[in-house]
Amino acid sequence: MTLLEQLDRQHFFHPGTHAYDHATGTLPGFIIGEGRGIHLTDVAGREYIDGFSGLYCVNVGYGRDEIAERMAAQCKRLSYYHTYVGSANEPVIELSRRLIEDWAPPGMVKVFYGMSGSDANETQIKLVWYYNNILGRKNKKKIIARDRAYHGSGIVTGALTGLPAYHANFDSPFDRVVRAMCPDYYRNAVPGSSEADFTAHCVAELESLIEREGADTIAAFIAEPMNGTGGIVPPPEGYWPAVQALLRRHDILLIADEVVCGFGRLGARTGCERFGIAPDLLTFAKGLTSAYAPLSAVVVGEAFWDVLMSGSREHGVMGHGWTYSGHPLGAIAGLANLDIMERERLVDNADDVGGYLLERLRAAFGAHRLVGDIRGVGMLMAIQLMQDPATRTPFPPERRINAGVVAAAREHGLLIRALGADIVGFAPPLITTREQADDIVARVQAAFDDALSG
Amino acid sequence: MTLLEQLDRQHFFHPGTHAYDHATGTLPGFIIGEGRGIHLTDVAGREYIDGFSGLYCVNVGYGRDEIAERMAAQCKRLSYYHTYVGSANEPVIELSRRLIEDWAPPGMVKVFYGMSGSDANETQIKLVWYYNNILGRKNKKKIIARDRAYHGSGIVTGALTGLPAYHANFDSPFDRVVRAMCPDYYRNAVPGSSEADFTAHCVAELESLIEREGADTIAAFIAEPMNGTGGIVPPPEGYWPAVQALLRRHDILLIADEVVCGFGRLGARTGCERFGIAPDLLTFAKGLTSAYAPLSAVVVGEAFWDVLMSGSREHGVMGHGWTYSGHPLGAIAGLANLDIMERERLVDNADDVGGYLLERLRAAFGAHRLVGDIRGVGMLMAIQLMQDPATRTPFPPERRINAGVVAAAREHGLLIRALGADIVGFAPPLITTREQADDIVARVQAAFDDALSG
Repeated sequence: MTLLEQLDRQHFFHPGTHAYDHATGTLPGFIIGEGRGIHLTDVAGREYIDGFSGLYCVNVGYGRDEIAERMAAQCKRLSYYHTYVGSANEPVIELSRRLIEDWAPPGMVKVFYGMSGSDANETQIKLVWYYNNILGRKNKKKIIARDRAYHGSGIVTGALTGLPAYHANFDSPFDRVVRAMCPDYYRNAVPGSSEADFTAHCVAELESLIEREGADTIAAFIAEPMNGTGGIVPPPEGYWPAVQALLRRHDILLIADEVVCGFGRLGARTGCERFGIAPDLLTFAKGLTSAYAPLSAVVVGEAFWDVLMSGSREHGVMGHGWTYSGHPLGAIAGLANLDIMERERLVDNADDVGGYLLERLRAAFGAHRLVGDIRGVGMLMAIQLMQDPATRTPFPPERRINAGVVAAAREHGLLIRALGADIVGFAPPLITTREQADDIVARVQAAFDDALSG
Repeated sequence: MTLLEQLDRQHFFHPGTHAYDHATGTLPGFIIGEGRGIHLTDVAGREYIDGFSGLYCVNVGYGRDEIAERMAAQCKRLSYYHTYVGSANEPVIELSRRLIEDWAPPGMVKVFYGMSGSDANETQIKLVWYYNNILGRKNKKKIIARDRAYHGSGIVTGALTGLPAYHANFDSPFDRVVRAMCPDYYRNAVPGSSEADFTAHCVAELESLIEREGADTIAAFIAEPMNGTGGIVPPPEGYWPAVQALLRRHDILLIADEVVCGFGRLGARTGCERFGIAPDLLTFAKGLTSAYAPLSAVVVGEAFWDVLMSGSREHGVMGHGWTYSGHPLGAIAGLANLDIMERERLVDNADDVGGYLLERLRAAFGAHRLVGDIRGVGMLMAIQLMQDPATRTPFPPERRINAGVVAAAREHGLLIRALGADIVGFAPPLITTREQADDIVARVQAAFDDALSG
């Protein structure tokens, strides 16, 4: 074990890492030294294709010198000043304009900044409660979140997240969170039912949940336009129009969590654009800066903002904010990132190459004896493994078949991600070319050969 | 109103800002364009001394080109990779070693990273609950936080914060938070009692709180070594040794929130060092990077870590983390910042110039007819205004006398901060010289003349 690896195990408390296995060296170390384009190199000199864009965040790829240089220039000019009590800086004003005018769905008017998707969703919940308190609706506070959702890892945002690993031993979930089903057509639909039937089923389930809880107790519905960490699950046909109509009927706000979907991941500017969603509130993070600097954004619709603004005449200053809200470093990284996204037409490339990659994966593995489903939208896709696809029989969970595939892919120089129940996820940088997509498929083939044969 | 200011008011949702007054222009705009050393310049070209280091975070001052250049170099080499499942990068490993070996109090072994003090304190609470779940102490979950504390602005961290503005309309505080008194000798001691008497009173109050709630329901006590945003209140003589002895007797963990105090602010490496505190868990942020990049750290003591590590053998991976935990940009900013802190001996300078500034403020305003108390430690100090210091009669709250002083100081080119009940706070960068301290005092004098005469 190298000295660097020893120090890593000695002092660095990693997120989402088995503490004992890491400390003892059972879990292999993986120290990344360099990144350029879609490639990463570890400190031992091995090169990888990053088929997951970090954690679906490095949309424009690694090593973009222009972002580094613009961050350095901003840092030399103004490294920081807070934005409380009306203070501002130039990049954050420009980024706000740009997000509202060019990237957010119609009807959004204001942008509040944080540093992570978790803190942005935390802000969303605080805003929604504040809003209903202004309106005197003291009991309209519950939030509906979906099974298998990922909305963060905080105490409350972790409760919104619908994955048991984020609840265990943390005394979650929270009593204001109500759980709706995950619209996973492949796993959750009654065999033989159409996508339209399944959508009707999901909406009926949501409606009965609202009726059971009482619409006057439910403030908001939060969802990823397309489920990410819970397994990369595209919404079934007609899902979003029907859900939105239901929410409007019950005066329930819609929070679109675009942390994964935003900034071209789905081959559209946002998941909202892709699926025709008109949210009241929207969360951006990840692709907003392509991870060059920590930045998240809470984007607020006009009707919601009007309530906050008029509420301030009675309630005064809202006691919410972070030291680094509107940090100029994050803002300049965001601006430089959007320049690249626009100049290189990466939304279109994600749509094109993402579609191509999905087609190639289907061609290569669609008939594999252990593959149940291959699905995706834009540059976000998944292979659902199954012990027996014909009867839709899953593997026993302890088998962790997808972790084996991911480990084998790493041996073949491809970083992809194991998700949920036997799902292998793909989310390459949006700059990926068709040739690189072919290379990804070839490496998956090699990983399948190693991990799934015999 | 300039176009920039119009855009600001149109699209940027500021933290801690009166929404209506900002949108309508009643609240003056303040757009900062440049910073160097202890000076800031707004976009209209007016120069200011930043007497509050942003939000007590820019410890090494603005415009440190070497930090900008090291961030750019790191960004070109490796802009990002996640640190889940044992992944790491070189700067985060080195920063972890450096924090444990050189900056944290003895006995600390591991560092978990976030982006803000709020998220770090959120992690602390999650860790504490997880720890007691591992130990099977399902009811030992309450957290004691002090009145006038500031621990963050999240849903739970805002509940730890002991300032009403952070609770109003957000449905805080939370039922697991228990409130202890603020050890403000000037405001809370019975007139005529000694500091030692007051300490005994604070400790007795804490003990009776613990007995009333039951020590078996209380997981931790969280506190700033020296209160910051609640009014800059140094602990009374003997406070920390007595509090620590009491907590140990009741098996209650001590979380030291060093977000403001850490990295030289108090003329010592940490508040723990300054006051002889041996915490179980410690939170760093702000001065960790001097705000050049968003970074916070949860520093974990050895006994606590041992429980987490052995717990992982039964409970597996702890489902907690942020996409940007251990981000290489924040880590390199932290390393560059620590290099400057050490090379320029800024901890010592904070002690020296901070002491000098406090002495000069006392000489200039100690006998002022509206000044009740002037206090501080290191480069963190406050003037407590009083309508009648002789009888300790405060101003009526609506008078907002301190806001008037702060506004007048800004007119004289000095940025300082109004806190709580008629307190004016000072927290200059740690690079401030004695000559600059004299300049600060002169500008305060001008502000007092404008705001407090007549």
